[in-house]
Parts: sequence; structure tokens; C-alpha cells
Amino acid sequence: MTTDTIVALATPAGKGAIALFRLSGHDVLTVLQSFVSVKQWEPRKATYTKFVNHQQLIDEVVATYYVAPHSYTGEDMVEISCHGSTYIQQQILQLLLSFPTVRMAEPGEFTQRAFLNGKFDLAQAEAVADLIDSHSESSHRLAVNQLRGGFSKELAQIRNQFVELTSLLELELDFSEEEVEFANRDQLMSLLDTLETRTRQLVNSFRTGNAIKNGVPVAIIGKPNAGKSTLLNALLHDDRAIVSPIAGTTRDTIEETITLNGTLFRFIDTAGLRHSDDTIETAGVDRSYQAMQKAQVILYLIDSSTPQQEAEQEIASTLASVDTNDKKFIVIRTKSDLHIPPISNALLLSAQTGEGMDTLIQSLTQSVGNYAIDTTLLTNVRHYEAMTHILESIGHIREGFDQQQPADLIIVDIRDALYHLGTITGQVSTDEVLNTIFSRFCIGK
Amino acid sequence: MTTDTIVALATPAGKGAIALFRLSGHDVLTVLQSFVSVKQWEPRKATYTKFVNHQQLIDEVVATYYVAPHSYTGEDMVEISCHGSTYIQQQILQLLLSFPTVRMAEPGEFTQRAFLNGKFDLAQAEAVADLIDSHSESSHRLAVNQLRGGFSKELAQIRNQFVELTSLLELELDFSEEEVEFANRDQLMSLLDTLETRTRQLVNSFRTGNAIKNGVPVAIIGKPNAGKSTLLNALLHDDRAIVSPIAGTTRDTIEETITLNGTLFRFIDTAGLRHSDDTIETAGVDRSYQAMQKAQVILYLIDSSTPQQEAEQEIASTLASVDTNDKKFIVIRTKSDLHIPPISNALLLSAQTGEGMDTLIQSLTQSVGNYAIDTTLLTNVRHYEAMTHILESIGHIREGFDQQQPADLIIVDIRDALYHLGTITGQVSTDEVLNTIFSRFCIGK
Repeated sequence: MTTDTIVALATPAGKGAIALFRLSGHDVLTVLQSFVSVKQWEPRKATYTKFVNHQQLIDEVVATYYVAPHSYTGEDMVEISCHGSTYIQQQILQLLLSFPTVRMAEPGEFTQRAFLNGKFDLAQAEAVADLIDSHSESSHRLAVNQLRGGFSKELAQIRNQFVELTSLLELELDFSEEEVEFANRDQLMSLLDTLETRTRQLVNSFRTGNAIKNGVPVAIIGKPNAGKSTLLNALLHDDRAIVSPIAGTTRDTIEETITLNGTLFRFIDTAGLRHSDDTIETAGVDRSYQAMQKAQVILYLIDSSTPQQEAEQEIASTLASVDTNDKKFIVIRTKSDLHIPPISNALLLSAQTGEGMDTLIQSLTQSVGNYAIDTTLLTNVRHYEAMTHILESIGHIREGFDQQQPADLIIVDIRDALYHLGTITGQVSTDEVLNTIFSRFCIGK
Repeated sequence: MTTDTIVALATPAGKGAIALFRLSGHDVLTVLQSFVSVKQWEPRKATYTKFVNHQQLIDEVVATYYVAPHSYTGEDMVEISCHGSTYIQQQILQLLLSFPTVRMAEPGEFTQRAFLNGKFDLAQAEAVADLIDSHSESSHRLAVNQLRGGFSKELAQIRNQFVELTSLLELELDFSEEEVEFANRDQLMSLLDTLETRTRQLVNSFRTGNAIKNGVPVAIIGKPNAGKSTLLNALLHDDRAIVSPIAGTTRDTIEETITLNGTLFRFIDTAGLRHSDDTIETAGVDRSYQAMQKAQVILYLIDSSTPQQEAEQEIASTLASVDTNDKKFIVIRTKSDLHIPPISNALLLSAQTGEGMDTLIQSLTQSVGNYAIDTTLLTNVRHYEAMTHILESIGHIREGFDQQQPADLIIVDIRDALYHLGTITGQVSTDEVLNTIFSRFCIGK
């Protein structure tokens, strides 16, 4: 059982109109009452009172008391909203901490207690952090779906199917003495197919889910002076990258995230591809290739003055050393305002006049694919790893059937899959795992 | 009557566990109910609900409804606390603003409405901004006292005394036809003395009050290489000012504020005093003299190796061009670790060993004077100007008596004083004055 009472500032640090403190633990009301004169606390009633230290008025505050289990953490809680002066914040925090049972909350500790008290499962708890981190419509929608238990429902369904698989197998175990051929083999295999398909879908969705959460990686590639940094700046509406007519201006890769049509993109501006004797520039070119490898979308920029045949050769030779499987490749003819572009089915772009920018943004958003609202996508490495383990277990189960292994051996693999499912929702968890998960939360949540 | 409903983020900008929106206006409940499904709102009850836009869940929030006049503004109010993602904050704000009657609150507009609805007077409203700005124990205490109405009570007392003065005069007016010598002249003069004393005290308290609010200005003065920047850095525990053995390192004055024993000090490190042919350095020396003029405390630093007589001459010649009236002057012998200091009653200081630092901090805090807790000090230029006007009016009233002017002439001056009193509490105010006052508030307050 938790015995400490925890406190944290739940609003962003710094001066503001209002700051909010949260306390959670069995004695929060005792703590509160040692600083305020109000003695009757109706649960959930926002109550105006004076926060006083030994007759010295610290602030006029509004306090709200929540009774377990009807609170965020499931414990007794108190919220104190005070004037947002940094001095007052500091005073109130110090006074609350002067109470012997009260200590500062660790990052995510409120949510951790909510999880431990069964307010929601681990995947939902993780969604709280994702929700706070969300910066685009898509990442917000994914986090909301996960928080509402969309993902947990999927997992419950998968779990049920594994349990069904087990009972079918146990049925066989009962009859194994009699060496009867297993009756429901077809039913069993069809269940396994369903399980595998859905699990694989989830594993594959990680690429998109992760991209939506952290930004779809887009590499901006091309020869020196093709207009790569100019494009980045045009997308950002900012002079982020140094632009000059001197070839080789960009050496380090420059990363910037931009939300386009509700999806976050991570643009990587790279050094121009060419052979150079300058070691710094050569190191830059190496990074350009790495950026292409990691990207989900490659924007390949070619100056509109380059003849079509030469352009095609250039692209072919660049792509020779990159695996473009799974990558969307967009050829862009830049500086279309300066040159009459040769015929090609590339996108014509002028950062100067803005020509082609809308078309580019459209193809970028299409590259993420249209996933339906409320589709579950894996967004979390931890979940991805667990689901990958489950997919492996399913492979072993299938092997077991094919090799007509005894049912009790196959059940070991099913248990393994159930264990990994449990790590996602937190039915199986260690302190170490929990600490890692909650340490990435912000303080006060 | 106010008809707009106003909304603002009341918590500091940026990502945090929780963000809080405030709405004030007659239709806040209608606005709220168009985004949440809960239809029964018990006043002041923190209620968990889903914030939804056309079936799309934006966030799970806790909303609280306050019924007029029992709210901060005195109008109907709603507070919505949501997850502190910047994306969610932006979405909720946009949705609230999409309501035709809702608009963004101006800075301080909630407090302005509270004032207009008689929740407190203008001096108290101004104290709200001071409270949020407070950064030290002293400035916090002053703001709390003013917010609680300590200052307003003083003003009410002064007002009553003016009213009493008026009735005594009117009594005389009634008898003036009979040319009777005014009976209560002594009583009247004693009342005027009391008024003048208290008003003068308040006017004089502005120097201290303002210093507490904005920091007591302390000029660090001395010849080049006396250790001025070293002292500033030692006080700050930081390498703020560039320190070098080369005389003339500091040229621009450097200002930094530090809270010592609960009082804010504004230290001004200056260029070393010497004749120089370098025009930049000469401009710096001019600024050193200006800093001395404005300072409330002058720390005069002399290297411990300087003989006593020479030191005295140096100080005398510097002070010749500065009016040190009302200023505390502290002579400090620096680098006491390096030299055996000649006899003098200066404070011995070594930034190296820390010798003398505590004594220095003590004399600095004493220099502010020990004002009693709950003493009213003027902290606001607006109040200072009004009180100065009142002091002038009192002078005119006294002249009137001395020159035996008719009572109805004297009453004009009393009215003048009452008018200026009214501007402080807001009984007399113009839209222009109000806008100036509230525009310095932060948004959401």
C-alpha cells in the first residue's frame, strides 16, 4: 500500500494568472486543513479559502477535495488553485512539503497510482502522456483512442481468442489418452489465422503510428544548389536553413517538424549529393544517405534546367545505393520560375512563386495513408516489441500444429503470447518497467 | 452592462499536466453545454465530463460552474481544466471562440469585471497584478496587505477625516452671516495636522514601497579594478559580469536583481571611475554617476592595498558630485585576502574567501528599514501621484485657513482631495484610466 502523500504543481512552470497544485494520499484533508480555516469539505466542491501559515496570509485560494475512489488517482485528493506568482507557488509548495508525510511527486506518479488503483490499464496510462505530448490532430486522435481504451479493447479481443484456442486444445488434452484425432482442427486453424492477421496488422501499423506520433520522416535530397534549404524554409515560412548560391552551403542535416493538414512531418534537409574533397562536406553527404535510409518519404529535388535524360540518370545512380522499399519517392523539379522545365512527370515547384507547394503538401499527406478514425495504430515501441513477440509465438503455435506436437507443448507458446499481451495492459508488470514508463511523464501528472 | 462572454487560458502557456480555461459571462453554461453531455450543473461542483466536438472527443475534462454573484468576476463563470497538451489547449480555445458570443479576454479583463461588479475596489484589483508579479517575501506581503484592503481601509479613514473637516466647515458656513468667529478652529486645525501627517507618511513610503516591489537600487561604485564585477558575481553566485585584471573591463552598467533575506535588491555594476581617453569608457563612467544618483544604497569599493588617507580623499572627491541625501553609503575594502588592510572602519570583504559577505548582506537588508508587518506602503506610481495631489490640496486648505478665506472656497480644495482619493479606489474613474491599469495584467486574470 502507498503511504506517502504526494504533491506537485500540475500547471506549467512560470508566472500565470492561476497555478494549480495536486495532492494525493490518505491524509490530504489533514494537510489542507492545517493551512486553511474551512473545516467542512464537501467532496468536489470548489471552495474559496485563505491559505495561511501561522497567521500570515500566503494567498487566497480555491481548494477542491476529492474522496477516494472518485478521483484521478483513486485516492483522496486535494487540488489547490492559487494566484500564479512564482513566489506564491514556491511558498505553498514549501509549506505543503513541510508536512512530514508529504513529499514531491515523481514524474507520472499520479497516473501511476491511478493505474495501481485500477482506474485504467497500462496502455491507457501511457496514452495520458501521449495525449499531453500530442501536437497534431492525428497524434491527438491516436492518443484519445488509446486513452478511451480502443487499443485495450483490441487486446482483450486478442486475449479472448488465445483463451478460446487454449480451451480447444485442453479439450484435445482430455482425449489424448484415447489417441483420438483432434476433432476441431479446422476451427482451431481458422482462429489462429484470424489471430495472426490482426497481430500482424498491429505490428505493421507501428510504422504509421510512430510516424504520426513523432513526425513522418521526409528526407530532402538532391545535388548541391537544387534548392533543398530553400524548400525547407518555404515549408517553415522561416529562414531556418542558411541559403546561398554557393554549392555546399548545408553540411549538417537540419531537422524541423511541421504539421501539414493535421499530420506532423519531420523534414530533414541534407547536404547536396556530390563528390567533394572537403572532409566536412563528405561527412555531410554520408548523412544525406543515412537520412534517405531512415525516411518514409524522399523528396528528390532537381533543378528545372537539368535535361530530362541527365535527371533520370542522376536519380537512378542515387537510388542504386538506397533501399526504397516502403518509401514514397517524389521527384520535384525546382526553380520552375527560372527555367522552362523539360517534359517529365515530376512535380514542378517554385519556392519563389509558391507554384507547386499545395500539390507537394497534398502528396505528402497522402503518403501517410488514410487510416480510418478510431483505427488502432501502435504508437509505442514497448507495445510494438510485445506485439512482435506475440507474432513470433503465433508462428511457434502454427509450427506446433504442423508438426503435430502434443497440445501441452503448444500451450506453453500460448502462455508466452498471453504474457506479452499482459505486459502491454500491465496485468503483468515489474517495478522496473513501471518506473521506466512513468518517468517519461511530466511532473504533476 | 457587459454582454460579451470572455474566455482565456489562465495557466501559463506551454505544455503541462493540466491547463485551465476560464469563461465569464451570462451564457457560459450554454457555451459549456454545447461541448459536453452533462446537463445538470450544480454550482461549484468539479464535474468530470467529455469535451466533444461533433462526436469527436477532444479531451476528458473537469468543469466547474460558478453562479453569479458568487464567482471571481461576479458574473456566471465556468472553469475547464483539461490535459495540458498545447494541441488540446488550442482546440478547446478555438471551439469556445467559435461560439458567436464568446471572445478572447483582454489582459486583466476578469479582474476588471470583478471591480466593475463591486467585488473589490481599484486598489485591491491592482494588488492582484502585484501579487502575481511578487517575487520576494516583502513584495508578496505588501501585495497581500493591499489585496486584503489594508490600503483601502487607510484611504477610507482619510476620506472620513476629510468629510469631518467638511462638516465642521459647513457648520461655520451656517453661522457666517452672523460673522461669528469660527468656534472649532482648534479641532479643525488638529484634524488637518493628522491628515497631513498621515498623507505625508504615505507619500514618503513610496520610495520604500516601490523599492520593495521593483528592487532596492544598489550602485556598486569604485575605481577600475576595485573588484566591483567580482562582488556582483559573488552575490549572484554566477559569472554574470566579465571579470579580468585589466582595468576598464566593465563599460555598460550591468543590472541584476537578487532576493536577500526576503527583500529584492537591484544591483548595478558600473564602470570604474577614472579619467579615460577611451570614449566608450568615458560614457561608461558617466553612467556610473547616474547610477549613484538613482541608487538608494551606494557600495563604494576600495582595494585594501590603498592607504587610508588616499582612500578618504578618493571617496570625498567622488561624493562631491553626488547628492547622497537619503542614500545609505557603505564603504567596502575589497581583496582583504590579498592585503593587510590599513585601519579604517570600512567593511572588509574578500569575494575569494567569502569574508565580509554576510555582514554586507546584513547591512543591505537593514538599509531598507524595518517596516512593521501590515504597514501600508505606497507601491504604485498612480497612487503616489494621487497622494501627492492630496498633500498639495491639504497645503491649500491650510493656506485658506491662515488667510481666513471663506469656508466655501476651502471646501473646493477638500473636494479636490476627495476626488484624488476616489481615483485610487476607483470611485472616480474613466475608461481610459481603467484600460491603462488592467492592460498591465496578464491574460486570464
